[in-house]
Amino acid sequence: MPVNLRPPDPKSLLPVAGVMLGVAQAGVRKAGRKDLLLIRLDEGGRVAGVFTQNRFCAAPVVVSRQHLSMIDPDQGIRALVINTGVANAGTGKEGMVRARQTCAEAAQLLGCAAAQVLPFSTGVIMEPLPVDRIVDGLPQCVAALKADSWSDAAEAIMTTDTVPKAVSQQVSIGGTTITITGIAKGAGMIHPGMATMLGFVATAARVSQALLKAAVLHAAQLSFNCITVDGDTSTNDSFMLIASGKAGMPEIVDAKSAEYLAFREAVTNVAILLAQAIVRDGEGATKFITVKVEAGRNVEECRKVAFAIAHSPLIKTAFFASDPNLGRILAAIGYAGITDLEVEGIALYLDDVLVAEHGGRSPAYQEADGQRVMKQAEITVRVVLNRGHAAAVVWTCDLSHDYVSINADYRS
Amino acid sequence: MPVNLRPPDPKSLLPVAGVMLGVAQAGVRKAGRKDLLLIRLDEGGRVAGVFTQNRFCAAPVVVSRQHLSMIDPDQGIRALVINTGVANAGTGKEGMVRARQTCAEAAQLLGCAAAQVLPFSTGVIMEPLPVDRIVDGLPQCVAALKADSWSDAAEAIMTTDTVPKAVSQQVSIGGTTITITGIAKGAGMIHPGMATMLGFVATAARVSQALLKAAVLHAAQLSFNCITVDGDTSTNDSFMLIASGKAGMPEIVDAKSAEYLAFREAVTNVAILLAQAIVRDGEGATKFITVKVEAGRNVEECRKVAFAIAHSPLIKTAFFASDPNLGRILAAIGYAGITDLEVEGIALYLDDVLVAEHGGRSPAYQEADGQRVMKQAEITVRVVLNRGHAAAVVWTCDLSHDYVSINADYRS
Repeated sequence: MPVNLRPPDPKSLLPVAGVMLGVAQAGVRKAGRKDLLLIRLDEGGRVAGVFTQNRFCAAPVVVSRQHLSMIDPDQGIRALVINTGVANAGTGKEGMVRARQTCAEAAQLLGCAAAQVLPFSTGVIMEPLPVDRIVDGLPQCVAALKADSWSDAAEAIMTTDTVPKAVSQQVSIGGTTITITGIAKGAGMIHPGMATMLGFVATAARVSQALLKAAVLHAAQLSFNCITVDGDTSTNDSFMLIASGKAGMPEIVDAKSAEYLAFREAVTNVAILLAQAIVRDGEGATKFITVKVEAGRNVEECRKVAFAIAHSPLIKTAFFASDPNLGRILAAIGYAGITDLEVEGIALYLDDVLVAEHGGRSPAYQEADGQRVMKQAEITVRVVLNRGHAAAVVWTCDLSHDYVSINADYRS
Repeated sequence: MPVNLRPPDPKSLLPVAGVMLGVAQAGVRKAGRKDLLLIRLDEGGRVAGVFTQNRFCAAPVVVSRQHLSMIDPDQGIRALVINTGVANAGTGKEGMVRARQTCAEAAQLLGCAAAQVLPFSTGVIMEPLPVDRIVDGLPQCVAALKADSWSDAAEAIMTTDTVPKAVSQQVSIGGTTITITGIAKGAGMIHPGMATMLGFVATAARVSQALLKAAVLHAAQLSFNCITVDGDTSTNDSFMLIASGKAGMPEIVDAKSAEYLAFREAVTNVAILLAQAIVRDGEGATKFITVKVEAGRNVEECRKVAFAIAHSPLIKTAFFASDPNLGRILAAIGYAGITDLEVEGIALYLDDVLVAEHGGRSPAYQEADGQRVMKQAEITVRVVLNRGHAAAVVWTCDLSHDYVSINADYRS
């Protein structure tokens, strides 16, 4: 059961002009489930993205990066093909061949060049991609293309997710109402390094290629790069921002304009909601934990402390048990890697409860107060470093028996 | 049930001339269990140690460091006092007062200076040390002092350990037979950064203070600093090497002498056995995993890769399930932080089975072979980076339901 997360109401997911979606049951790994998604863009659309920094990155990541760098942005990407079941990572040269074959097949069906297609995969690593099944499934996707299939699309990219993840928001930019709709998937092998497994956000806004790239970097840094479930950085992480340019608005070209800042904020908000949804549906999650680290010298050291807390199996199991064994949080702060940290200045809060200060437990702290907060489904851990003005936030979940069960059984 | 680890036969634990041990049931946290240990050294003994690098290090760690730096090595440390139940970490100034009070009390009983006593604690963090109970327990320890109490001593320092950990070995140095006997405890919050929670190794060898320090650093680097259970670096890690100097041998003073190298190797071997025992008895462990990374450019990058594998919850749950979902190992190699790693050159072996090469699964690999090795209680993961001549080894265990249960319930 995810933490305070429901399947999106399909009616709440607004279509984006210039973007159509079609799904199929291709039987990539298992029969009888949606596992193939085609996102088609009209001519003139733009795409920018960020990818995993894992050195064993998947073949589709390599191919997508190549295609994005080869293509004249104004000729443009025309399609994204996403399969679940098999990650096509750790598959060597044959994996590259199969990722390219997927693109060629989609290109032929859509009447564009193979380099105008971006491939994405998620699933088991080091197993060969059954590309024949994908080739067989693509015509079904084309036949199913519709503008209001975001709900189906969110479902088609799920792996161990228990709930599809999709968000629509609208923002007024220079008097024009712009829709931003996005989907994402989790739910394990989640750790920054880049993004989550897969996230796709689309808008009809007209934005220059340079600013689209800047916006996706900004949004990723404040959303997918702020979450962790298990500290494992996937081979397939990809977060793509699609701007179809169909909105009746002047193109956004100035990075300092109010229009760009409004666009960037709206995209970031959608990305944060998707990233948080991934944590809420993290494998085995029963708690949603926000870790805020404040008053650090720089963002990097705040993130180090926040991730030390968010990755600690001891802290995560204490959250699972609702046990205010909060000294474990001090230990994580201490080993986060800030070599000149003076612990006397640090304050630790659990929601509104002051837990520790001056290097030890606060005299005002009562175990009953810690116990009260630990029992909640949503908890904020706040660490005040008292050595600067920077801050960072990270979202994570607890570590439960179900995490072990899910990952012990994932392939079976 | 620890992995291939039995309680040591008390008769196998050889006394060390000049070192006596006494334990007591002080009721530090729970009644009716041995939880206080006094190690007394005769005059002329020497002690060197390494401590946690956690910035929230415990009060006894701070005091032990101070005492070791204050004391003239030839006046010497006369006692070590170790309690379990409460870690005396995250306890601020009051924690320092109580650690010093422990030393003062032991010093009075033994007729030495407080600075000749080193305090150690392990247990729950951020709870006040019940120093009155320790003061009450110390006379019992003094009354119980014996040379052949190593088995009791190993038992007295246990927390979530299921089996006491103790090893004796003998080595011939320049014709003199030297006994090395050591004890250690785990079993959670285990990750290098220094050592494990607590390890104490004693010998009657005569060694200069400088070489004793060099030997303890060497041994820690190749033993306790090569293990991880859960990636959490404790606030209390301490590994102490005691040399009573009672052996009838010339003092070892030359770092290049055969005598020093034999001594260092023997100490390191004992430390490795103790460190491996901690992993075998890691919280919830059902498998003992050796991760060898070879042919790297330097030891640091080999360790990065080995620890990325050893820390991955996804890999650890796959070991628990005996599931050869080995692509997860490629993913961990990829995110280990070697930014110029070329994956084409890497080979991955599971024991004798070649699993992956040339960036993907080996054509020769059969799932049945992977399955066979995964079912074993002891497994070696070997990664050949093919970019240099350095190597590193790390020992770890799997992540099981019992790890979650133990840490969800630890304080109750």
